[in-house]
Amino acid sequence: MAALELFSRHDAEDVSIDDVAFAAGASRALVYHYFGGKQELYVAALKSAAAQLEARLRPHQDGRPLEEMAEGLTRYFDFVEEHAAGFAALLRGGPANRSGEIGEIVDSVRQRLFRLIMKQMRVDEPGPVLRITLRSWIASVETAGLDWLEHRDVGRPGLERLLIDQMVALLGAAARHDAQVARLLADLEADRPAGSG
Amino acid sequence: MAALELFSRHDAEDVSIDDVAFAAGASRALVYHYFGGKQELYVAALKSAAAQLEARLRPHQDGRPLEEMAEGLTRYFDFVEEHAAGFAALLRGGPANRSGEIGEIVDSVRQRLFRLIMKQMRVDEPGPVLRITLRSWIASVETAGLDWLEHRDVGRPGLERLLIDQMVALLGAAARHDAQVARLLADLEADRPAGSG
Repeated sequence: MAALELFSRHDAEDVSIDDVAFAAGASRALVYHYFGGKQELYVAALKSAAAQLEARLRPHQDGRPLEEMAEGLTRYFDFVEEHAAGFAALLRGGPANRSGEIGEIVDSVRQRLFRLIMKQMRVDEPGPVLRITLRSWIASVETAGLDWLEHRDVGRPGLERLLIDQMVALLGAAARHDAQVARLLADLEADRPAGSG
Repeated sequence: MAALELFSRHDAEDVSIDDVAFAAGASRALVYHYFGGKQELYVAALKSAAAQLEARLRPHQDGRPLEEMAEGLTRYFDFVEEHAAGFAALLRGGPANRSGEIGEIVDSVRQRLFRLIMKQMRVDEPGPVLRITLRSWIASVETAGLDWLEHRDVGRPGLERLLIDQMVALLGAAARHDAQVARLLADLEADRPAGSG
C-alpha cells in the first residue's frame, strides 16, 4: 500500500518514481520493469487493494443473512481502518485518475459487493427497487467509512450497528413500495434464510 | 454542457480541442483564449454544472422541512434528467481528472447540499450520528440518480417518494442511537418546524 499512501497524500505530478520506489522498498529500475511507470504502479496498487477487500468479505460461514452481513461489515471496517489511505484512494479515485481505469476498478468493487449481498440475502433477481436500495446502502457504507476516517468521533462498533440498522430501515421503507422487498424483509426479520418464504 | 457531454462519452485523450470548440459552437482560438486548454474548459463546465444544480436547490419558500426537501429532490431530479451527461460527469469525476480539482468541485457540491439540508431541518450543529446519516443519504440520492439514468426502470415520482421515505427511515434507525436525531425526527414527524421542540 506504500504507493497508495503516497498518491493519496500528494498530487500525481508531485510524486516521483524515486519516491514510489523508495516507499515500496524497490529500485527505480524494478518499478519500471514490473509496472512501466508510476501511473501503472498506482493502478496496480489500487487493484491489489480492491482484491484484498473482496477477499476479506467472502463469507466464512453459511449463517443467517443479517448476521453474515454484520460480520461482513466488521471485516469491511477492519480493511478501512488498516488501509485508511488505500481505502480513501480507492473511493476518491485519487489524483492520478487519467484514463478512467480507476473508475472501472471502483465500479467493479461495488458490483461485486452488490452480488455478495444478493447472495447473502438469497436473492437471485433483484427488481429495480431492491437494486436501488442496496446500491444506495453500499454508497452509505462507503460514505460512512470515509466520514469515520475523517472524524473518528463515533466508536466503530456503534457505527457498524447503525449501518446494519439503517439497511433494515431502508428495506422497510422500500417494502412499502415493492412486494419483492416486503417478502425479503419478512424473511430477514423472521431470522430464517431469506427467499425461502 | 456540450463539453461535459463530450468528456463523459470519450477519454480525455480522444477529445480534441477542435471537437470541444465545435460542440460549444466556438472557435478553437476562443476556447484557448477563454479557458487555456481542454482540461480547463472541462473544469469550467463542471463548475458551471455544479453552480446550476445549487441554484436550483435554493428553497423557494419557507415551508415544512419534509415538504421543502421533497420539492428540493424534485428539482434535483429535474437537473439529473435535463443534464444527464453533466450529472454523471460531475459525480464520476470524469476521465479528465488529473489535478484533484474535480474531486474538490464534487466535494464542494456535497458540502453545500449538506448545509442546505441542515438549514431546511433547522439544525445548527449536527452531531456525528446526524452528520453520518445525512451524508449517507446524500450519497444514496446520488447513487439513485446514476442508477435511474442507467436503467430508467422506475418512474421518477415513485423514486423520489422512495428516497424521502428512506431518509425518514434512516433518521428513524439513527434515532435509536442518538438523542439529537430522535428530537429532530419527532419534530419532522409532528409536521412543525424542526428544532422548535
